[in-house]
Amino acid sequence: MRKRPRGSAPQLEPVAGNGLLHRRALLGGGVMFAGALGSGASLTGAAAEPLVEPDWSLFPGEVTPVLQKPSRFEAAVVRTLSNPKGEPRTQHARAPLQMLNGTVTPNPLHFTILHSGIPDIDPAQHRLVIHGMVKQPLEFTVDDLMRCPMVTRKHFVECGGNSAPMFSPEPIQAPLQALHGLVSCAEWTGVPLSILLDEAGADPKATWMVAEGADSLAVARSVPMKKAYDDAIVALYQNGERIMPGNGYPMRLLLPGYEGNMNIKFLRRIKVIDQPAMTYYESRNYSPLLPDGKAYKFYFVCEVKSFITRPSFGYSLKNPGFYEISGIAYSGTGRIQKVEVSADGGKSWGEAAVEGPVSAQAFTRFRMPWRWDGQPATLTSRAWDDSGAVQPLRPDFIAVRGEAKKVPNVLGFPNQHYNSLTAWGIEPSGEIKHVYV
Amino acid sequence: MRKRPRGSAPQLEPVAGNGLLHRRALLGGGVMFAGALGSGASLTGAAAEPLVEPDWSLFPGEVTPVLQKPSRFEAAVVRTLSNPKGEPRTQHARAPLQMLNGTVTPNPLHFTILHSGIPDIDPAQHRLVIHGMVKQPLEFTVDDLMRCPMVTRKHFVECGGNSAPMFSPEPIQAPLQALHGLVSCAEWTGVPLSILLDEAGADPKATWMVAEGADSLAVARSVPMKKAYDDAIVALYQNGERIMPGNGYPMRLLLPGYEGNMNIKFLRRIKVIDQPAMTYYESRNYSPLLPDGKAYKFYFVCEVKSFITRPSFGYSLKNPGFYEISGIAYSGTGRIQKVEVSADGGKSWGEAAVEGPVSAQAFTRFRMPWRWDGQPATLTSRAWDDSGAVQPLRPDFIAVRGEAKKVPNVLGFPNQHYNSLTAWGIEPSGEIKHVYV
Repeated sequence: MRKRPRGSAPQLEPVAGNGLLHRRALLGGGVMFAGALGSGASLTGAAAEPLVEPDWSLFPGEVTPVLQKPSRFEAAVVRTLSNPKGEPRTQHARAPLQMLNGTVTPNPLHFTILHSGIPDIDPAQHRLVIHGMVKQPLEFTVDDLMRCPMVTRKHFVECGGNSAPMFSPEPIQAPLQALHGLVSCAEWTGVPLSILLDEAGADPKATWMVAEGADSLAVARSVPMKKAYDDAIVALYQNGERIMPGNGYPMRLLLPGYEGNMNIKFLRRIKVIDQPAMTYYESRNYSPLLPDGKAYKFYFVCEVKSFITRPSFGYSLKNPGFYEISGIAYSGTGRIQKVEVSADGGKSWGEAAVEGPVSAQAFTRFRMPWRWDGQPATLTSRAWDDSGAVQPLRPDFIAVRGEAKKVPNVLGFPNQHYNSLTAWGIEPSGEIKHVYV
Repeated sequence: MRKRPRGSAPQLEPVAGNGLLHRRALLGGGVMFAGALGSGASLTGAAAEPLVEPDWSLFPGEVTPVLQKPSRFEAAVVRTLSNPKGEPRTQHARAPLQMLNGTVTPNPLHFTILHSGIPDIDPAQHRLVIHGMVKQPLEFTVDDLMRCPMVTRKHFVECGGNSAPMFSPEPIQAPLQALHGLVSCAEWTGVPLSILLDEAGADPKATWMVAEGADSLAVARSVPMKKAYDDAIVALYQNGERIMPGNGYPMRLLLPGYEGNMNIKFLRRIKVIDQPAMTYYESRNYSPLLPDGKAYKFYFVCEVKSFITRPSFGYSLKNPGFYEISGIAYSGTGRIQKVEVSADGGKSWGEAAVEGPVSAQAFTRFRMPWRWDGQPATLTSRAWDDSGAVQPLRPDFIAVRGEAKKVPNVLGFPNQHYNSLTAWGIEPSGEIKHVYV
């Protein structure tokens, strides 16, 4: 945190249209609330004291539980479910990113997609086998892996189908959770896969491996051996505790930046091979179609992306004045280097503050001070990573990738791997709409 | 993660006595498991396939819930409670650090101490008032603060009384959770207090502020204005979601590195003053006694500290061979710079791998490869921070601070702010005892 000289004079440099202030503006000194904040944080004067004494300040509170849970006043902060009764098909649970802040997703709220329910795996019986083109096939118990060298890394996991509603020709009026809720970020801890492959003596001529889960669908994906050696992890912990059942308990493959489905949950088998296995999920489900009818053969990496989480659809601005614009940026190809924000739909841009330390393939929080004048405004963000990648503008993106109506929806997914912009239209009433720029 | 050349030859340099290996040892290639791993991850040979098919691989699993929770096989991973019925006195909930990994404590498991229960606060009614030596007293609703500029920081919070059992003249045979469980680490997001103080126009002549909570005990502590301007935060989010009720919902003061009790929960009032208020908690409870009967007037900072979480008391080593030694280091006076580990009770030391990015006043995970030969060993760790501070050796620490038996226990705490070493004695049977070095 930058230290501020006490009582320092406010510096308020507008950096772009419609009230964007410099990311290093020294707020305070009446700048934020002077007059403009209205109904809420009114200047009180000494007469506002003493504070009222609600019941919770007068009587002892509740008994401490062994496991904490959120306040009952936060009951709306939950995942939204497709197929909530668990009929025999895929179940999606989307993370309420518009109600979160910071850079990690709490485990209860981490998105999940399960194709055949959540297996109830006994870790004492679970085994991980590494075989195929290896000198010595190996079988690991959970206890074995617990003795191995581990690493801890903060990484997002994103479904290749996240943001699919953004391919709609008209912007869908729905909260961020419905649009982009199939991505989350956690601190993962586990054993580098390279160590286990070396232990088994993987053949240097092997080019691929196929990883398989212990769920009843035995979800399987091919992974290039280069990725396996670069940064793949057999993850055992998620945000400090053992992995959630829906995220792969007792262990999952973690492939930083690669689409979620490849990060095989309930990992039970790795076969080292010399060609891709062309499993169902790589040859059918996750091969995005292009407008000309061709499909991507492999589309592994989740590319650079950003969106504003607050304000966003579902919030409304009570009155003109100061607001912080805050959002998430992340990239499967590197570290977030820069995020720009616009309040006039992309006519002018200001550079947002990006909070460090910035980790590769991880959520990065950006923040931008903004003074809303009560007039229409269009908020959007655009991110760059340190590989030089940048979010494409929507017209350019759609020209290549098509819109939902132009693509025969033969796959159940209109399209995948959307990484263009997301924009929020602020109405004079303070209401917020989803718009395209 | 360091990339490893495929099939690279193992480098195994011992760096200290009793089997400590170099922190950058390239494991794999049969180094870890060759022969020595015994019962567990036995080399299987091709005959081990096919894998058995347990029920969870044959039948669809459970329905996805709106909020995930840990596997039923992790039911032991809970906080341990003092005063579990919530009789009218303090309730402690200790974090199971020996069962966690990485650097963050999941919110359900974050330690708490409540002196009058957990208040059930309606955020719509809660107010934060800043008054006293200010130009303009201000009152903030939660919604007001949600509009303000925020920061996200990973910080530990530790009770000044954490590790009090370490003052016992004989090592207490208990899990890490009982010894050191009153510390946790989270990613906190909130409004820098300096902004709010500037907004109210705090008097430059003010030297202290007193912060007060909305709980029925109205816990209050004095804080130097320098700390308030340096890095204090009014925190609204904990690991991405709104703060847990036991950790201060809807908002708490966060004073990075200062003892937990000062990080006022349920924050409702800040009065800017020109002397410390000498409240109950600063003049009586958190003034550690010295052997000569004098007491520290103020002891705010939690000093540099480390302990090995695994292996630790409660685990047992099944057989000789490879193990990773893993633990936590943190310091209220800076960033962890170095951690050394010993397997021979401090006769020789090797430098552990410290996982980055290393944040100031935050849990830092250290790791050390170790090959246990089945003979007695004594594992311990010692940390340094970038301010130059180092964990004192136990004889030096006790000489100054005393042991429990030498200090009349007039305060209910035998002593506070223990930051010397913690050691685990490995018996030939693999059993682990708490020992002093």
